[in-house]
Amino acid sequence: MRGALQQATIAGSLGEIPVGALIVCGNTIVAKGANQTQQLNDVTAHAEMLAITAAAHYLGGKYLNHCTLYVTLEPCPMCAGALYWAQIGRIVYGTKDEKRGYSGIAPQLLHPKTQVTSGLLSEECAVLLTEFFRKLRN
Amino acid sequence: MRGALQQATIAGSLGEIPVGALIVCGNTIVAKGANQTQQLNDVTAHAEMLAITAAAHYLGGKYLNHCTLYVTLEPCPMCAGALYWAQIGRIVYGTKDEKRGYSGIAPQLLHPKTQVTSGLLSEECAVLLTEFFRKLRN
Repeated sequence: MRGALQQATIAGSLGEIPVGALIVCGNTIVAKGANQTQQLNDVTAHAEMLAITAAAHYLGGKYLNHCTLYVTLEPCPMCAGALYWAQIGRIVYGTKDEKRGYSGIAPQLLHPKTQVTSGLLSEECAVLLTEFFRKLRN
Repeated sequence: MRGALQQATIAGSLGEIPVGALIVCGNTIVAKGANQTQQLNDVTAHAEMLAITAAAHYLGGKYLNHCTLYVTLEPCPMCAGALYWAQIGRIVYGTKDEKRGYSGIAPQLLHPKTQVTSGLLSEECAVLLTEFFRKLRN
């Protein structure tokens, strides 16, 4: 999750909502993603989506059932839907997204075999976001 | 929808599940997408996702509230989640996806302002898919 936080910090420093992701397979980091919706002018460019695409490219296969996604913010329904298709093995997320997190909108979106852990370094993940939005308002 | 069917046919001829999409703004086609998950080795490369990205690029803005998406198959939850973020004005889809269509899994995924029309050229859209899967089995 430290690596995902690093990606989130990079995103924030570029004016993006600071969300970062990492995909790990065995002991190897196979993909990193930082939210790039503003830079790429693309609503689909969430950290998780970019990481899923990059991981499949690195591994040479679309399915990530042996992989773990670390992401600083709870995935939205779009990302949860993509994680379903990727059949991701495990998701570890930092802070809960009360408004747009998949679990509050449609918890059935993930693949039935996907394991989920929440709350890892939750406070650090959340602080990045609250600081970002505080600065935006000022 | 004829244009979306054309995209679906292209996808099928390349060994992809034949789904095609078109985004229209005013009287202009601003984006086309054909399912490319196999060719790009990427679960996120659905026709709608590629069309959303292309439309935002063409229009120079992420939000597609004045646009209509024509797609041959009912969008999955990932695509519905992306269409939420894009705030798409209207969705017109051909044939219903009984297994993975958003409406059977989580109908609340779309933006509340998005209008939906289903069943346009439904039979033609469906035939492409049933023919594709029939050939795959033989």
